[in-house]
Amino acid sequence: MAVVVILTVTLNAALDVTYRVDALRPGGTHRVEDVHTRPGGKGVNVADVLTQLGEQVVATGFAGPQLRALLPGFVPIAAESRRTVAVLAGAEATLFNEPGPVISAGEWTALLSEFDRLAADADVVVLSGRLPGVAPDAYAQLITRCPAPVILDAEGDCLRHGIAAGPTLIKPNQDELAGLLGRESGHPADLAAELGVNVAATLGSDGAVLSTADGVWRSRPPRAVTGNPTGAGDAFTAALAVGLARGRSWPQILADAVALSAAAVAVPVAGAFDAAMYREFTDLVTVVKD
Amino acid sequence: MAVVVILTVTLNAALDVTYRVDALRPGGTHRVEDVHTRPGGKGVNVADVLTQLGEQVVATGFAGPQLRALLPGFVPIAAESRRTVAVLAGAEATLFNEPGPVISAGEWTALLSEFDRLAADADVVVLSGRLPGVAPDAYAQLITRCPAPVILDAEGDCLRHGIAAGPTLIKPNQDELAGLLGRESGHPADLAAELGVNVAATLGSDGAVLSTADGVWRSRPPRAVTGNPTGAGDAFTAALAVGLARGRSWPQILADAVALSAAAVAVPVAGAFDAAMYREFTDLVTVVKD
Repeated sequence: MAVVVILTVTLNAALDVTYRVDALRPGGTHRVEDVHTRPGGKGVNVADVLTQLGEQVVATGFAGPQLRALLPGFVPIAAESRRTVAVLAGAEATLFNEPGPVISAGEWTALLSEFDRLAADADVVVLSGRLPGVAPDAYAQLITRCPAPVILDAEGDCLRHGIAAGPTLIKPNQDELAGLLGRESGHPADLAAELGVNVAATLGSDGAVLSTADGVWRSRPPRAVTGNPTGAGDAFTAALAVGLARGRSWPQILADAVALSAAAVAVPVAGAFDAAMYREFTDLVTVVKD
Repeated sequence: MAVVVILTVTLNAALDVTYRVDALRPGGTHRVEDVHTRPGGKGVNVADVLTQLGEQVVATGFAGPQLRALLPGFVPIAAESRRTVAVLAGAEATLFNEPGPVISAGEWTALLSEFDRLAADADVVVLSGRLPGVAPDAYAQLITRCPAPVILDAEGDCLRHGIAAGPTLIKPNQDELAGLLGRESGHPADLAAELGVNVAATLGSDGAVLSTADGVWRSRPPRAVTGNPTGAGDAFTAALAVGLARGRSWPQILADAVALSAAAVAVPVAGAFDAAMYREFTDLVTVVKD
């Protein structure tokens, strides 16, 4: 299999902290015996999935002093990166997501320079997640200067700005897609046509719709998977990146993304998937042309 | 008024983080818009109260890389200091307290050397709070080498070890005191006599009992104060330190500590007190010899 290189960019990378407690008691004091930390953020999860797939991946983004110990290759910033705190009581997770740090003009320039260096060798570039304190057109700036195909997984204003710069593919969920056009709902293919961009829209357990200039396809997983949907979207994005990098057809890309994201639901942490389930679903998943 | 110097030691200093949310929803995801951080730990609170009182205070302890930005004078350690996370929803606070960091042998030696330097110029030394990952006799080691009177505010094993080294005064609450002797309860004066140490035992809104070799006194605030009892114990300790440093009588020391801790309840944050209420209570608080 030819070697391809995928670059993931996580501008608002996080230190994901997990506190395990016996029970969450609102108003109470909890002595946390077990603190687990890992690097997080959607692009970091995409990179982890790609690594599990055996693909060659390079990850960049911003990292504050503490996060840099875990992501040494990221562009350093003076402010600490945001944290997410997950309080785990049995199987129930309660999440607290901090806002992102402010990025200085010099730090943004350093990121652009690192991006140019890495994107020059990349077959596909993935831009994932919300923005920290940077200009709302940050993704648009990256897309404009990127020599490789770009997948953009973002929301709201930064997605809107990014679309104007012409990404190869965007990956919203159905609600985000409708929200972009100020609608409550709508068929993904109609919304995509209106936006004038290729869209892989996730529909939760109903699978996904891929709407491109070449056609519209729909796919759903062969059976329902119970588990943790956190991270399924990042596995979906990882599969899109592999498919684009390897020059696969649109329906092949969609089928693979639906199989991989369903296999990610079976695993409790983001950035990983159930390999046996992925192999099984790869053979079973079907794609229908709309 | 003569200048006295009080040294506070906070071996397990913390970064106190406050997340403000609209409502705490167990199992939900909370976007935290407002993150507030401040240095914390009981000895840090004692130092803040002493500063508000106009006393000269020197604070030391251990601080990891991130906390050092807020406590530059503390002894640096490689591990990050613990965090406490307070989730504030309206007036309700839900607290998560991380365990402390592991301290290396070299870091402990550096602390002893800094302690010797600072304690040589101190009129009173205050040792406050739980221990991080150090030997359980850490407080005993500090007390043994300390040339100044020592107030020890700790719990459990490290308090037990500390008592054996002969502190000037310990400041448990009534339950902690009984627990030291493996009892459910007991009169503070009897428990203190059995332990062979001077004890200022706090009784919550009922005030406090001071049991010394010279006698036993009891005091209560002139009226109930509603508010936040967090930090009242640290204000109590601060007043004990001032009284010892200034050579006041035991009943004077007790009255002042009860007045100041009641005035601290009126203020929502630890390390501060209501100055007008403190002045009022100083005139009104009474002490009874047991």
